[in-house]
Amino acid sequence: MKEHAVTIYDISKQAGVSIATVSRVLNGSDNVSEATRQKVLKAMEESGYTPNAFARGLGLNTMKTIGIMAADSSDPYLAKGIYFLEQLLRGEGYDCLLCCTGYSLKNRIASMELLITKKVDGIILVGSNFVYEDDADNKYILDAAAQVPVMLLNAALDAPNVYSITSDDYTSMYNAANMLISEGITDILYFFNSRSYSGRRKEAGFRDAMKAAGLSTGDGTLQFYRGNREDVPAMADLLEHVWDQGHHFEAVLASDDTLAISALKFAVRKGIKVPEELSVIGYNNSMLTACVTPELSSIDNRQETLCQHLTATLMGVLGGNEMPKQTVFAGELIRRGTTR
Amino acid sequence: MKEHAVTIYDISKQAGVSIATVSRVLNGSDNVSEATRQKVLKAMEESGYTPNAFARGLGLNTMKTIGIMAADSSDPYLAKGIYFLEQLLRGEGYDCLLCCTGYSLKNRIASMELLITKKVDGIILVGSNFVYEDDADNKYILDAAAQVPVMLLNAALDAPNVYSITSDDYTSMYNAANMLISEGITDILYFFNSRSYSGRRKEAGFRDAMKAAGLSTGDGTLQFYRGNREDVPAMADLLEHVWDQGHHFEAVLASDDTLAISALKFAVRKGIKVPEELSVIGYNNSMLTACVTPELSSIDNRQETLCQHLTATLMGVLGGNEMPKQTVFAGELIRRGTTR
Repeated sequence: MKEHAVTIYDISKQAGVSIATVSRVLNGSDNVSEATRQKVLKAMEESGYTPNAFARGLGLNTMKTIGIMAADSSDPYLAKGIYFLEQLLRGEGYDCLLCCTGYSLKNRIASMELLITKKVDGIILVGSNFVYEDDADNKYILDAAAQVPVMLLNAALDAPNVYSITSDDYTSMYNAANMLISEGITDILYFFNSRSYSGRRKEAGFRDAMKAAGLSTGDGTLQFYRGNREDVPAMADLLEHVWDQGHHFEAVLASDDTLAISALKFAVRKGIKVPEELSVIGYNNSMLTACVTPELSSIDNRQETLCQHLTATLMGVLGGNEMPKQTVFAGELIRRGTTR
Repeated sequence: MKEHAVTIYDISKQAGVSIATVSRVLNGSDNVSEATRQKVLKAMEESGYTPNAFARGLGLNTMKTIGIMAADSSDPYLAKGIYFLEQLLRGEGYDCLLCCTGYSLKNRIASMELLITKKVDGIILVGSNFVYEDDADNKYILDAAAQVPVMLLNAALDAPNVYSITSDDYTSMYNAANMLISEGITDILYFFNSRSYSGRRKEAGFRDAMKAAGLSTGDGTLQFYRGNREDVPAMADLLEHVWDQGHHFEAVLASDDTLAISALKFAVRKGIKVPEELSVIGYNNSMLTACVTPELSSIDNRQETLCQHLTATLMGVLGGNEMPKQTVFAGELIRRGTTR
């Protein structure tokens, strides 16, 4: 059985007053007699509708809604971010409209426009893949920021009304590579799947650490291109293919834990001992690190802390305060069984 | 810089007409002169606001929004469900309001009330943990269903305006236990973490299969009680503890993949060979199955199919059609390296 949604017309008709009068009552205006006010409130009560949502619909208050965009809310890392943000925003009295955009720019532009249409109070982009290498592709972010604050989790973009909360991916990766080098490991494969903002920062950290140590990164990077970012066996296949082509390595430094997990799978297939013959380091310090034996060493980019600061910054901006445009936290390598 | 949200008052003032007239224009009423209509449209254009969202706020149309509740959107299995649903609903022109409720009934009641206040067109409960053993605890679902259709993914509840889409967990678990028994394995540990609707169905399937084979389930079930459902090492600790107490087993039949992964971890610790000395079967057929070596055998409960049917059923209900109250799909054991 479908219910008829109660409208301003229903209340107006039932109370026998004009729509403007109903609006005045909703708005708490003094310019309504007490008798009329009571008639309207009675009609509202009898029709069983909720003044708050209604008042918001009239634009009397803000929508108290934040739009959250993520490429794929089922990606374990992004899912965690969405979870933290939803909890934190709810604590501040805000609801979350979730948009899963996939990875195409076209869909992202459409989702962004949709959220603006919904009169959200702010937009959070979860994941660094929303900031493109080519500045022209980032116009959709600037367009949105012209209307509401745009918060970037794990990405940075210098533009008005855009706020970035990032982990220092460059330094984290630089330090991880450096640690491997200090152990005498020079054949390091940097294994990645994305040239997003954070992806480029990570890769630069790896390259600079190698360069600083006088090491070549000639064929030391490998990108997993396949569509499905969860396809661990396909990632292991790629590593095996490269290895069989004669490109051997003593360590895999991966841009996320899924890729690192695939390196462990590859090692088992080939009978390569971890960490004695192969060190593996992941990124994100996700629950995957505990799923494998030995447990995965991984860089913790402090996602929960980032989400807390993002929410605090957004609340500050919405409250009309001057807030920092960019906040950067240091990451930390959590050493477990896949490093010596 | 905060923007002032455009209201019906702004349009009315700017166009020099009454609020009722603005409403009539929004509503497409004939009872407005063309000159007045043009004045209102001009004011709308100049103030740069979006008629559709506004009209919805007035209750002229539906909100075209579905509330999605999940205990924890970062749980890999629930995250996948949310992802599928969000995509499918967007395809139907609906937005998703996400509420992460945690596992307490109190929070769930509050979230449910909030979604109703938001005038969502329907509510989807993702995960079987929303249906409680005690009927009195399910009142919050019935209350919501008195206002909007409530869809249950992976749970069932026989009540007006409640629609259930489930996988046949009972039969899937019965068949999996039966397969192990047919291989001569009689010491099966059923390892679970929840007595949710689907949890109880799974356990019953295990117990009935054992009973049908004339086997005892005396101490054959083990519940992981700890708060963090991702704490794989703690799960492995529990298995080790039980084993060290002298309760040995030849198979672990787990109610989800995370628990099954912990059984593999436990086996490595103890030097128990999988699958020769220990068979392990998980549930959900998640990406975790591919993260371990050997890869995990797991029951596929066809979540994407469930989400498709849930969305189709909801759209049917919202369209005023008679739709099935309960839809049940068969699951399937995907055999990989952890079973013989």
